[in-house]
Amino acid sequence: MHNNKCKKLINGKLTLPFVCEWKEPEELAQLLDLELRATGEPQQRLLQRVKDVAKYSIKTSHPRFFNQQFGGVDYHALAGRFLTETLNTNLFTYEVAPVFVLMETEVLRGLRQLVGWTEGDGIFCPGGSTSNMYAMNLARYRLFPEVKSQGVWSLPRLTIFTSPESHYSVKKGAAFLGIGTDNVILVKVDDGGHMIPEDLDTKINVAKSLGAVPFLVSCTSGTTVQGAFDPLDRIADVCEKHKLWMHVDAAWGGSVLFSEQHRHLMKGVDRANSVAWNPHKMLIAGLQCSALLLQDTTVSANATYLFQQDKFYDVNLDVGDKSVQCSRKVDCLKLWLMWKAVGSTGLAERVDKAFFLVRYLVEQMKKREGFHLLRDPEYVNVCFWFIPPSMRGKEGNADYQDRLAKVAPVIKERMMKQGTMMVGYQPLGNKVNFFRVIVFSPLVSQKDMDFFLDEIERLGNDL
Amino acid sequence: MHNNKCKKLINGKLTLPFVCEWKEPEELAQLLDLELRATGEPQQRLLQRVKDVAKYSIKTSHPRFFNQQFGGVDYHALAGRFLTETLNTNLFTYEVAPVFVLMETEVLRGLRQLVGWTEGDGIFCPGGSTSNMYAMNLARYRLFPEVKSQGVWSLPRLTIFTSPESHYSVKKGAAFLGIGTDNVILVKVDDGGHMIPEDLDTKINVAKSLGAVPFLVSCTSGTTVQGAFDPLDRIADVCEKHKLWMHVDAAWGGSVLFSEQHRHLMKGVDRANSVAWNPHKMLIAGLQCSALLLQDTTVSANATYLFQQDKFYDVNLDVGDKSVQCSRKVDCLKLWLMWKAVGSTGLAERVDKAFFLVRYLVEQMKKREGFHLLRDPEYVNVCFWFIPPSMRGKEGNADYQDRLAKVAPVIKERMMKQGTMMVGYQPLGNKVNFFRVIVFSPLVSQKDMDFFLDEIERLGNDL
Repeated sequence: MHNNKCKKLINGKLTLPFVCEWKEPEELAQLLDLELRATGEPQQRLLQRVKDVAKYSIKTSHPRFFNQQFGGVDYHALAGRFLTETLNTNLFTYEVAPVFVLMETEVLRGLRQLVGWTEGDGIFCPGGSTSNMYAMNLARYRLFPEVKSQGVWSLPRLTIFTSPESHYSVKKGAAFLGIGTDNVILVKVDDGGHMIPEDLDTKINVAKSLGAVPFLVSCTSGTTVQGAFDPLDRIADVCEKHKLWMHVDAAWGGSVLFSEQHRHLMKGVDRANSVAWNPHKMLIAGLQCSALLLQDTTVSANATYLFQQDKFYDVNLDVGDKSVQCSRKVDCLKLWLMWKAVGSTGLAERVDKAFFLVRYLVEQMKKREGFHLLRDPEYVNVCFWFIPPSMRGKEGNADYQDRLAKVAPVIKERMMKQGTMMVGYQPLGNKVNFFRVIVFSPLVSQKDMDFFLDEIERLGNDL
Repeated sequence: MHNNKCKKLINGKLTLPFVCEWKEPEELAQLLDLELRATGEPQQRLLQRVKDVAKYSIKTSHPRFFNQQFGGVDYHALAGRFLTETLNTNLFTYEVAPVFVLMETEVLRGLRQLVGWTEGDGIFCPGGSTSNMYAMNLARYRLFPEVKSQGVWSLPRLTIFTSPESHYSVKKGAAFLGIGTDNVILVKVDDGGHMIPEDLDTKINVAKSLGAVPFLVSCTSGTTVQGAFDPLDRIADVCEKHKLWMHVDAAWGGSVLFSEQHRHLMKGVDRANSVAWNPHKMLIAGLQCSALLLQDTTVSANATYLFQQDKFYDVNLDVGDKSVQCSRKVDCLKLWLMWKAVGSTGLAERVDKAFFLVRYLVEQMKKREGFHLLRDPEYVNVCFWFIPPSMRGKEGNADYQDRLAKVAPVIKERMMKQGTMMVGYQPLGNKVNFFRVIVFSPLVSQKDMDFFLDEIERLGNDL
């Protein structure tokens, strides 16, 4: 795909094909002719439609897609996805998914081993938000099994603890599960975005004194914006003291567990009750691939039409009763095939390479004027402001923050409309819009890092 | 795939390749060598692994896979799935999924039109269970918006009404959402498995008199086992009278809306507040493809790092805030492409053909001794007992039901071990194990129906 024929000229230099072909929604709708009609269409037109869908879609596998924690491509995983689609089965009984019931068990075991557990359970979920909700549901059930039949009315008011930099799914999940967002207590973070265990302890005591029942701490390994790793070992001490379920949302950061060099970031994870980990992020298994790992067993619903007990094989292999879903997509094959292809060592090398490239990027940023890091990155999220020449040295001006807030959106708009690369921005607390570049795809090289910096300058130097 | 070379001999007759190659779990685990290791493997071995995965997986696209409400294959939908996997994007913002944000809107509009709505909203969910849960969550929020922040504690006890033949996800969902399975009130059904509106009215009044707040009725269009369609129009009258949210779980039955001839089964569906419909079932779009259709708008979480308000395009196109998921797979392309290819007319023809084949199957069953229907099917689920010759005319014997209960499991075991076809069985209420054959794949012919009956006889005549 990335051959010379597709290369384009930017500033007189040959470059890769575009990450996107931006169109306004109205124009795109017209180009695509999406309307569904009574009669079918001939093959030639369908083929053209397929080409158009590809043309106007974002090339997330492009080495210059730095926009989110998914992207890049692993061709073994892609083959696994094609095979999954072809076999089109449902991961709920051994009868219809014999290979995948066994495979999922093995992949979950492999992931649990990296967490440091020799036993336990787990399940693949449609995304990290669902994995986090499952953990909440299990923690609640462990403490108050009557919730399943009687609902939350039979329980005292429960509270969840997490940091303000945790993923928004913690609050969404609390709302969905009938716990309520007010009962998600935000624990203070330090400058680097790490949960402060002492404040956690204080907040738990305050909640108790108000008559609530704390039941779960949701820590984060790799926060969405800054990539911070909460201090798991010290949080585990607090959880043990108060007998709370410790959940680790490692959707983004979990993959450091492959790396001997970087797994220390998650020291203490083996003391957790549950871990959510999305191999569709850093490991680029492909959307969706999210594992919830457990030291406990899960809740079942007893659907006799699916899970007959008089089968001729061990009905413990009918795993569907573990899930809130009924139909459940096969998400393990793509990861299994990629893992078989490159081995744990190969996956570890990818993690290490990403850290290496980030270090390179940061060094280069420090050498250039105009790039201002929020802080030295702990992970592979690099958060920075680009200060255009016209604003340099004017930090004291009253309108400086307002002007700075507008820089990233303008650069982003230009970038999208030219299609050369994609990177996200957002505000955080009192920090105005800054870029967050994510580096993890094995297709990315030092050259792409240099390009990234040149391109930000090219797009923003006149602001 | 189904060429002559692959055909096998059964009873001296040529037949299609096998639906499955049964292996005991221990043997299969050994054959597959699933263990994940430190080092990668050469391409040749990986290729062999891919072949093995395919070989020992169930051929759900096989015309003789009658086991569940998914199966069969549409090659346009499959192409759409391959393209989805290749493009690997996330349906949460217009920025990363411009084509699919617009496409999902259009597909949902097409489905809503069939329901009879000119306006409304909707979302694709990872399966019908999730769609049903979303409906419960929305109904609860509409009545008591404070539930989002304060949880269920701030509300009176809520009750949900559904029939005992509804999908088990209603109870699972109630447990997950903190409502509790005891607060799912089961409404009586008639002999055909249809909810009785008069009993619904009575049960609602009883719940109110006990101080509970009824808030949702979950009707079913196409029950899992019998394929019954609840009388929506008469249920809508009761819902209107009591001002309850009417949800229609049409995960399985929804596709009758394409057919002029059969859409009367869902008369009154336009009066519902929400409809769950799984095109991965009868329309064979491929797992997972489940739409929740709404007349209302949904709840959002405000994740500023994803859903910045200072973007250069209409941020209403950032649909991710509608979902409890964050990462959300693209499930619309496969359905869109298939719909474009064959048109609404082509999809209607498939529905009509399935009904036609079922009528044929039932006629043939009635001509043969030994096939005893639970009742004439309303949909494409055919539920029947096979009575082996040794049991015929002995209905009065004390052990008759016990013996009958054991027939289906034995035939199923033989069928799986020989691999010729797959069909499910289950008990229901006081009815002992019976087969439920599901007919909907466009690949199925009258010959397959004949084969089905011959095969049941071949496998069960000596029992």
